[in-house]
Amino acid sequence: MKALDIKARIPYRLHIGQNLLMCDELLQLCHKMRRHIVIITDEIVAQYWGNTLLKHLNAHLPRVSLLSFPAGETHKTRETKAFLEDRLFELGCGRDTCMVALGGGVVLDMAGFLAATYCRGVPVIYLPTTLLAMVDASLGGKTGVNTPFGKNLIGTISSPHSVWIDVSTLKTLPESEWRNGFAEMVKHALLRDESLFHALCDFKYEINEPLCDKIATNLAVKKEIVEQDETELGLREVLNLGHTIGHAIERIENYGISHGEAVAMGLLVESYISVRLGLLQESDLSCLMSLLKKFGFLLKTTAFEPISRFMAVLTLDKKSRAKVPRFVLLERIGCPYQKNGSYAHPVDEQILLEALKWAEVNLK
Amino acid sequence: MKALDIKARIPYRLHIGQNLLMCDELLQLCHKMRRHIVIITDEIVAQYWGNTLLKHLNAHLPRVSLLSFPAGETHKTRETKAFLEDRLFELGCGRDTCMVALGGGVVLDMAGFLAATYCRGVPVIYLPTTLLAMVDASLGGKTGVNTPFGKNLIGTISSPHSVWIDVSTLKTLPESEWRNGFAEMVKHALLRDESLFHALCDFKYEINEPLCDKIATNLAVKKEIVEQDETELGLREVLNLGHTIGHAIERIENYGISHGEAVAMGLLVESYISVRLGLLQESDLSCLMSLLKKFGFLLKTTAFEPISRFMAVLTLDKKSRAKVPRFVLLERIGCPYQKNGSYAHPVDEQILLEALKWAEVNLK
Repeated sequence: MKALDIKARIPYRLHIGQNLLMCDELLQLCHKMRRHIVIITDEIVAQYWGNTLLKHLNAHLPRVSLLSFPAGETHKTRETKAFLEDRLFELGCGRDTCMVALGGGVVLDMAGFLAATYCRGVPVIYLPTTLLAMVDASLGGKTGVNTPFGKNLIGTISSPHSVWIDVSTLKTLPESEWRNGFAEMVKHALLRDESLFHALCDFKYEINEPLCDKIATNLAVKKEIVEQDETELGLREVLNLGHTIGHAIERIENYGISHGEAVAMGLLVESYISVRLGLLQESDLSCLMSLLKKFGFLLKTTAFEPISRFMAVLTLDKKSRAKVPRFVLLERIGCPYQKNGSYAHPVDEQILLEALKWAEVNLK
Repeated sequence: MKALDIKARIPYRLHIGQNLLMCDELLQLCHKMRRHIVIITDEIVAQYWGNTLLKHLNAHLPRVSLLSFPAGETHKTRETKAFLEDRLFELGCGRDTCMVALGGGVVLDMAGFLAATYCRGVPVIYLPTTLLAMVDASLGGKTGVNTPFGKNLIGTISSPHSVWIDVSTLKTLPESEWRNGFAEMVKHALLRDESLFHALCDFKYEINEPLCDKIATNLAVKKEIVEQDETELGLREVLNLGHTIGHAIERIENYGISHGEAVAMGLLVESYISVRLGLLQESDLSCLMSLLKKFGFLLKTTAFEPISRFMAVLTLDKKSRAKVPRFVLLERIGCPYQKNGSYAHPVDEQILLEALKWAEVNLK
């Protein structure tokens, strides 16, 4: 079992390994909490892992409950939060409750927010069960729910008590979900770690120690970025690499495309812009394209056509200033481009149009 | 204008004076925020002060809005919070929003919670307009909403940017509301400041500098207690003086009695217990009784009869352990009783019954 210490407003520790869900250390931690333990999960993960964990904890601890809600981003709402709160009150949970968030990013965001405001704050332990949640949502402290006006608009920045990344839970993960996590891993490598980028060429959807190592390297990259900039004003912007284009694709496809596919295409288009601006080498772009194809990304979307619609949606991006979208660019693999202290740059409209035309031809 | 610096997770400053709502310093602060300013208030305070403040800020700042909700504790709900969030999104408010909470405790609790989770946290400035909010809700960082399961069950501990206590807004405060604040002031004096207790004998419902001084002294008392114990584990428990009995009265009267009346009676019953246990002098209890009567407290309730019902409701108190209610007791005026590091004590059932019989005779 590997461990990583995170410096946040409230520091916490990340554990990475196999078969952690049933390990003694986690059980002892739950016991030490001397509290009512409540597993928060979604209905799918409850079937795969939740009920087993409940049974295991119940055999050793006095008060353990499980609450689940329907799986998926569409259920990450204020209404689901209120529903869970009312169930917690019915269970008689007070300030001596400790939550255990078991699931993907949606479950972690929901349970993190739930815990941050339940009785004005109770501790929560994260047990991510998707590769994406392991390398992304488990670090950074962002919690929240969606509203009809947009994603993650209501929430907090708050730390879990600790994070236990049990890669064995990936056994039940569909391949498309592996790709969602893989796209973020590629992003981290592009931002900070050229050797990780090359190591990812040998990546396999297999549960073993090298997987634990790669997750640990990824988290070290995100940790370095997040710790330097907890409130997302400067360096943390780099984590949006691939996401300006990626989010626009998702919006136009009405979230009918997976986040990983959208980000993969975003990484390619934004790398093309970097090449076009004379920053990145063309060979690096080719390298990225073959890596993504090798791992089964389809890299197909109809979102770029017509370009005028795509441009209109781009201006709605969170990073836009005065309706001009801004992009994280690469100087080389492992190094984002910085200018005047900023990592998010406006791009000349002509170059942007050219990049979209390139995408229209190459990604469809 | 007086100022008091509060050490909290995020330190902030309290300003106390007359005519602060329209003062240049507040206007300059709003200007400095370079943000969309949104006044959050209730429908009654909007009439008295909100619309005037909106007009004033609008004359000097580019983007100012006002959102109001129906007045009263029954509207401090998750539903009202979601309603306000949706109005904020409709107004196009992003992370560059600064909220201004204008009103009593309900408005401060609601706006504080709203700000703590809107776009994962935006700043909020508190402008309390009731004596109770000035001496109580403006300090301590508690925010939150009620649910059908109880009061303040969902919320956060978070600091406002700053607090501006404009005593001139008390002009429109009904006398019963003055008493709600006065009861908390008496509580603070009983806990920490004998001279404040005697000064309160000359208290008048008048807006002048001595009022500002008394509010400042009160806040200094609460500040000392809260700063020593931000997470409410030890010393902060003393702030529940009068509230174990007070909350039980409110529950039985179904909140048809004012908080101030309930707390005043709670202070008397709990002081009686202190006398009965040989801690407090009987003359201090008489002093307290005449002070409260002088300031128009009715000190009447039917809640104590039958005593069995009152006892049952008492056990539901938040401070109860294993269903045994706990009380803050007084050693003398200005000094709570401490034993084994705790300030909340179980009381022998016989003595408790005796105190309730005393109350039944003396407070009805």
